[in-house]
Amino acid sequence: MHPNLRRMEPVSWTQTIGGIIRLTATCICGSDLWPYRGVEKLDGPIPMGHEYVGIVEEVGSQVTTIRPGQFVVGSFWASDNTCEICRAGYQSACVHRVLMGTLGTQAQLARVPLADGTLVATPAMPDADLVPSLLAASDVLGTGWFGAVAAAAGPGKTVVVVGDGAVGLCAVLAARQLGAERIIAMSRHEPRQQLARQFGATDVVIERGDEGVTAIKDMTGGFGAHSVVEAVGTQESMMQAIRSTRPGGHVGFVGVAHNVALPGDELFMSLVHLHGGPAPVRQYLPQLIELICNREIDPGKVFDLSLPLDETAEGYRAMDERRAIKVLLQP
Amino acid sequence: MHPNLRRMEPVSWTQTIGGIIRLTATCICGSDLWPYRGVEKLDGPIPMGHEYVGIVEEVGSQVTTIRPGQFVVGSFWASDNTCEICRAGYQSACVHRVLMGTLGTQAQLARVPLADGTLVATPAMPDADLVPSLLAASDVLGTGWFGAVAAAAGPGKTVVVVGDGAVGLCAVLAARQLGAERIIAMSRHEPRQQLARQFGATDVVIERGDEGVTAIKDMTGGFGAHSVVEAVGTQESMMQAIRSTRPGGHVGFVGVAHNVALPGDELFMSLVHLHGGPAPVRQYLPQLIELICNREIDPGKVFDLSLPLDETAEGYRAMDERRAIKVLLQP
Repeated sequence: MHPNLRRMEPVSWTQTIGGIIRLTATCICGSDLWPYRGVEKLDGPIPMGHEYVGIVEEVGSQVTTIRPGQFVVGSFWASDNTCEICRAGYQSACVHRVLMGTLGTQAQLARVPLADGTLVATPAMPDADLVPSLLAASDVLGTGWFGAVAAAAGPGKTVVVVGDGAVGLCAVLAARQLGAERIIAMSRHEPRQQLARQFGATDVVIERGDEGVTAIKDMTGGFGAHSVVEAVGTQESMMQAIRSTRPGGHVGFVGVAHNVALPGDELFMSLVHLHGGPAPVRQYLPQLIELICNREIDPGKVFDLSLPLDETAEGYRAMDERRAIKVLLQP
Repeated sequence: MHPNLRRMEPVSWTQTIGGIIRLTATCICGSDLWPYRGVEKLDGPIPMGHEYVGIVEEVGSQVTTIRPGQFVVGSFWASDNTCEICRAGYQSACVHRVLMGTLGTQAQLARVPLADGTLVATPAMPDADLVPSLLAASDVLGTGWFGAVAAAAGPGKTVVVVGDGAVGLCAVLAARQLGAERIIAMSRHEPRQQLARQFGATDVVIERGDEGVTAIKDMTGGFGAHSVVEAVGTQESMMQAIRSTRPGGHVGFVGVAHNVALPGDELFMSLVHLHGGPAPVRQYLPQLIELICNREIDPGKVFDLSLPLDETAEGYRAMDERRAIKVLLQP
């Protein structure tokens, strides 16, 4: 643990290695619905929200690369970006990591530990219409991107994306950017199918489970896809992803796993590569910010509902009832 | 399925695309102990054995690259080596694959389907002392090699090998050949520890389970190893392998999984890469045969007991009771 994190109370690390940002925008994550729905049990009130963009208000005395007035994007994991694990590209497992959700960003202001390692400033103050896309980079785009990288999406590859939430849709966008030849979105919701196609999906498959696997096999010469991104986190979706992948292919799983147990014998015989987990979004932020500021990608389209911060509860309801893909909150 | 395999009885495919070899040596595999011990239930007598080297006796009329009189090595999976999956390097999932164990190689003669795709001839008739090493290439060396490749063993890496059977020991040898910096063999058996060190292990750890994980963490700055080869196939060994691996590191699992269920949440948070399964030994055979014939590696040392074929039952007993690492059988 970083000495300043170990020794000091939050207020103290804010004064040294942390920063305070005034949020320009924040949002509700699919993973916020797990506690909302009671699947994750809570003992009482907790801070919520871990996605954020905003203007730096203050930085601690030891912060050197970030300064007040900058527009910044950060990952949902605060990280030092200097430890051996960070340098290997796994900032989401930084030895000093702090989950931003434990501090809460569905708020007007947010404290960010490890400001130097966590925050990335945009080259200039972004136009207002870029804010949703930059906010998406904070989690769903970075997570979908990691899923596509973990699934080894690339030129000549057929990529399947299981899950049509914001992360799945961003994985479609990422697969396109990574040069995939064919991108198959698994979705039975018309608006999400449309967005998947805008993001680069070449095909949409409405079947799921075993029928979904059969459909993918039929489309890939019986082999299965080269690359499959799993962006749901259930037993059914994980097995669908593994079974849709050809031997030697890659499964990138980024749906937060809930009550999943992978059968060893089937995994063994599948001969797939399996990689995933909490995305090291920080690794991709400079590249994603550049693509967004150059208007080469527009992941902000995943936000189909914007609400003032004091209507956050309605935002949760809209996502829970699948009336909205993803809700942007304006502090 | 290959048309000749689909349409014809074994005798027929032997006459067209298959081959018959007179075995110079065969052996008993750790996986043969699963049915021997009753863990895998059997309905009645079955052919046994899937590792083999020998002299080609006859080939089918359509075989073009293998001819009678050649000394050949083949994988435990027969494969066409031409389908899309084979060309991607996954011959163990060839669309025409045939498990040699279903035909049985603990015998004087063996039929090999798909002779062109399966068999690799040595450059010349090998010296007798090379036969054990060439036999090892048929499975345990190729499997250990795949485990080390799947675990991304290479320069600068710390590699842990869980399992001190013949496959684990060959994984140590493979990690050394692949340039790993530090190779830690998990073993509490003195003769196996010695062989591990001969094969390139820099360290031996006798602890297993949680204590084994703690020992590896202590040796790797608290991070875990970059690469871990799992060569056992039990729940305990799989979890030990995953927990011994740093975030972003690689687990290569080649122990045939028995009653293993991987907890999704722990796998998710571990951020490891997981790859394994039945090794595509055929992919590595040309390289392994060259290393053996050049006397650069000596994997045949895993055979610490040789018996005539008609004492096969004693060979099973010796391996079951761990009196022998691996038993070579002389037809």
